[in-house]
Amino acid sequence: MLKEAIYHRPKQNWSYAYDGKTVHLRVRTKKNDVDSVHAIVGDKYAWKETKDSVPMRRFASDDRFDYWEAAVRPPYRRLRYAFHFRQGADSLYLNEKEFRTKAPSDSENMFEFPFINPVDVFTPPAWVKDAVFYQIFPERFANGDPSISPKNAEPWGGKPTPKNFFGGDLQGVLDHLDYIEKLGVNAIYFTPLFEATTNHKYDTRDYLKVDPHFGTNEKLKELVDACHARGIRVLLDAVFNHAGKTFPPFVDVLEKGAESPYANWFHVREFPLTIKDGIPTYETFAFEPIMPKLNTENAEVKKYLLEVARYWVEEIGIDGWRLDVANEVDHEFWREFRKTVKSVNPDAYILGEIWHDSMPWLQGDQFDAVMNYPLTNAVLDFFAKGKIDAAAFANRIGKQLASYPRQVNEAAFNLLGSHDTPRLLTLCKEDGHRMRLSALFQLTYPGTPCIYYGDEIGMTGEGDPDCRKCMEWDEEKQDAEMLDFYRSTLALRAKHSALRSVDLRFLRAEEGGKVLVYERRSEDGDRLIVAMNAGKGKAKVSVEEEGQWVNAYSGEPVRSSKGKIDVRLPGYGFMVLKQA
Amino acid sequence: MLKEAIYHRPKQNWSYAYDGKTVHLRVRTKKNDVDSVHAIVGDKYAWKETKDSVPMRRFASDDRFDYWEAAVRPPYRRLRYAFHFRQGADSLYLNEKEFRTKAPSDSENMFEFPFINPVDVFTPPAWVKDAVFYQIFPERFANGDPSISPKNAEPWGGKPTPKNFFGGDLQGVLDHLDYIEKLGVNAIYFTPLFEATTNHKYDTRDYLKVDPHFGTNEKLKELVDACHARGIRVLLDAVFNHAGKTFPPFVDVLEKGAESPYANWFHVREFPLTIKDGIPTYETFAFEPIMPKLNTENAEVKKYLLEVARYWVEEIGIDGWRLDVANEVDHEFWREFRKTVKSVNPDAYILGEIWHDSMPWLQGDQFDAVMNYPLTNAVLDFFAKGKIDAAAFANRIGKQLASYPRQVNEAAFNLLGSHDTPRLLTLCKEDGHRMRLSALFQLTYPGTPCIYYGDEIGMTGEGDPDCRKCMEWDEEKQDAEMLDFYRSTLALRAKHSALRSVDLRFLRAEEGGKVLVYERRSEDGDRLIVAMNAGKGKAKVSVEEEGQWVNAYSGEPVRSSKGKIDVRLPGYGFMVLKQA
Repeated sequence: MLKEAIYHRPKQNWSYAYDGKTVHLRVRTKKNDVDSVHAIVGDKYAWKETKDSVPMRRFASDDRFDYWEAAVRPPYRRLRYAFHFRQGADSLYLNEKEFRTKAPSDSENMFEFPFINPVDVFTPPAWVKDAVFYQIFPERFANGDPSISPKNAEPWGGKPTPKNFFGGDLQGVLDHLDYIEKLGVNAIYFTPLFEATTNHKYDTRDYLKVDPHFGTNEKLKELVDACHARGIRVLLDAVFNHAGKTFPPFVDVLEKGAESPYANWFHVREFPLTIKDGIPTYETFAFEPIMPKLNTENAEVKKYLLEVARYWVEEIGIDGWRLDVANEVDHEFWREFRKTVKSVNPDAYILGEIWHDSMPWLQGDQFDAVMNYPLTNAVLDFFAKGKIDAAAFANRIGKQLASYPRQVNEAAFNLLGSHDTPRLLTLCKEDGHRMRLSALFQLTYPGTPCIYYGDEIGMTGEGDPDCRKCMEWDEEKQDAEMLDFYRSTLALRAKHSALRSVDLRFLRAEEGGKVLVYERRSEDGDRLIVAMNAGKGKAKVSVEEEGQWVNAYSGEPVRSSKGKIDVRLPGYGFMVLKQA
Repeated sequence: MLKEAIYHRPKQNWSYAYDGKTVHLRVRTKKNDVDSVHAIVGDKYAWKETKDSVPMRRFASDDRFDYWEAAVRPPYRRLRYAFHFRQGADSLYLNEKEFRTKAPSDSENMFEFPFINPVDVFTPPAWVKDAVFYQIFPERFANGDPSISPKNAEPWGGKPTPKNFFGGDLQGVLDHLDYIEKLGVNAIYFTPLFEATTNHKYDTRDYLKVDPHFGTNEKLKELVDACHARGIRVLLDAVFNHAGKTFPPFVDVLEKGAESPYANWFHVREFPLTIKDGIPTYETFAFEPIMPKLNTENAEVKKYLLEVARYWVEEIGIDGWRLDVANEVDHEFWREFRKTVKSVNPDAYILGEIWHDSMPWLQGDQFDAVMNYPLTNAVLDFFAKGKIDAAAFANRIGKQLASYPRQVNEAAFNLLGSHDTPRLLTLCKEDGHRMRLSALFQLTYPGTPCIYYGDEIGMTGEGDPDCRKCMEWDEEKQDAEMLDFYRSTLALRAKHSALRSVDLRFLRAEEGGKVLVYERRSEDGDRLIVAMNAGKGKAKVSVEEEGQWVNAYSGEPVRSSKGKIDVRLPGYGFMVLKQA
């Protein structure tokens, strides 16, 4: 057994309370290097009476490692533990201090999970794992009230540029709630709605006011209420990392420099505020002069932004916040943000924009989830771009699942594109089959999927600004087959708890292969099998399963004999199977 | 290069801000498996202009791994990075996504340190790394005011039992400040002083009142002021995990059960409060009925305890808190505790009692340090008990240093014993030579050492209650040689910044060997070499060093020739060398 590969460090994704009574223990070993792992557990003050050896299950694997997990319910909320690895006749133990070959006789030197304190248990809102989001870029979704459109708004459907406008607004969204509901989503994520100068509104002027070109605060309240009446939740975008160049405190500092009472609201390296060799003399988002970074350590800034956070949740009734450039803002601020938001709505969803490994923000004191771009990249590499084989894809997914506690995976925000990336269909080189495979994986994966407006009707677009085209409302120009695929797959997800649960097991994912088969299973006994062929040639797979299975979309029986299901897939074909 | 051994995950001890401008990057490789490591770093928004390859130094090793570190100062506070490993002609790169053999052409997929936010930088009080603590168990240090001794107090120097008293008090400490100062310590850690029924006072009755057998709040203020006048800081013990059976809210719950207004101040599994089969029906410290666990999630409890935390710091002027059973209290409480304490004294030291790996508490939002028992155990195993060889000891130390950020190591609380363990001399089987080796390592190690009262005069004692004997004030019965050793070694530590710095490099620590030689070096150029022989036979070591070196205690020159110092040590002997 390769000791250098074995890894465990208490907390984070390695030992954590899943709920007020359960601790999950995990350990990593070299791939295919160990036959079995047990967790030796007990209460340190009653070791003899409580000692137990709990089998761990291999719940995920990546290219180099296997990951093992066990759920333990310590009777007095305290847990000491060690690990016992077996390979053939060999036995190896790991405690906090060292590897040893002899079984421990007491709890000395063991790892410790000191006490389950409920307030520390990371508990994302329960509704999130059953949610499906629809992302709307408001300027481009629908123009419901031309009277408030920007004066220079261009005719709907024109070519988007970094600076032009088309007049999308909140009334437009209200007008299309039937469409949204019928699609099968039950949550909307809006990119920024607050007053700002740009079409994307990431340069906020007034955090407490809906942009007049979108509507009013009252109109937003009307929209939120209308959404809630349909069981649709609403998430807004909080751009707290930086303000806009028209944000009054920034305007004041631009004018008065160090004399401004707002001088400490920003991170000024040198007064007066200017740009030297292309670099602003104050911190900004990237090197963007119109987006001055807010000093979220300043008590006044904090007070102002926390009031913003409270206002929209409490007064307007939104169901949570998506946090722009979340990882460049201090942790301390996010902790207070969480307290503020949860104090007015414990069920609010807090979603950080982080493109990287995000464990430090997902421990219960800051975010409920992050935008899961590592998943995005894996799906795109396999299904959309064909850059990796099935084994590599399964390894990337295994690594992802092992990287976070179970409840983090349950509430992950899984997107395949956004206003910041080229559109999915474009990344698939406009091949609808590849796009459907990508989306099918997304929609049958744990966490909450998010569909970028228009993807479901086959809209295309390169990166910003091309991915921000006006929504196509002419049904003749919509891809009806794609829309039908999304609707039926979302209906399947809604119907089957297995597709929303966190348990995913790969049944087929071979090196050099393009066929992917995986099982989804929920604790209430629901089970589905998803088979996909990411290659262009036909594929035949046989899956070992007893009983009669049917195509979950159509209800048609699938061929099976002698305990094997015979799955035949055309190039880029897929099948979702359920028990008859 | 063994990929399974290579480890890095952003934050914790792997990438952290050391100060407002500096990020430390670290990575782990298999021991002796890699020739060199470079960190490839840059700003993601100005990659070409800022890209750099920074050599990493191997700053620590343990039995299986080498640990590499580089300090980087990102010009715009943002950092993208990857690692470049070399072994002979082989090159290997690691980014956040994967290993690769080709050099990266851009910052895509790299690890990210998003932004240095000063408020998130873990900054323990600067004074701590120059402090030496003296731990006093007040009931047993000195009886300065017999008029307030417990009625059943026994004559000073009797045999301690779990329940007896000897009348030690605050006046006794005041009377011996000359002794304490002359010893060379500059901080005192008191085990609990607040009113309670036991001799150890870990069962608090009143958190806002000094125990009448110890004195009054005013007497403590007098003592704190007297200490401060001598440059001695004072740390009190906060027993916030549990109260005592006479704590009025607990008494009320005992009486009134679920009807008590304090019912939610504790963790009651079942009313009325009783003991069933030896297990209290409420949570306690261990299964100790007189120590009911406080519900630190309850807003009233929190308010009460935070007021306690504030009062002693602000009104009485103490310099920090040692937190009893710190890891069983919720993180959320400790975050608020830190804010409260630091708001009244930013320089207060917050020290948690945790015997295990403590990374989750040492990230800037909770504690400044923990009681470093893993170090204790390593020192005892090598010097006191002779259970491990020099190589194993150096590996244990290397693992310890690599486990935490640099500033955590700088502020670590390094003890070799306490009121909870047998005394050091007893663990050394009363061999003063072994004890001196143990203490010499402690007193020349980074962090802040703590001496348990009486160890310095050769007091012995098995575990509790025997380790809580009355301080021996009869100089005839004190071990003068031991006292002189402590005084002179503490003077050496005070004089040499190298002994208080965090840089430690082992020069000799062989497998099967008992000789340990290490270099201590500070940034201002101070350098010392410590040589110890933990074996009973004589030892000869030659250390490659130019120039003339002297015994740091005596100033006597040591033999050297041709760039080598010739160190000769008797069994259990030691030498500290400095440049002439």
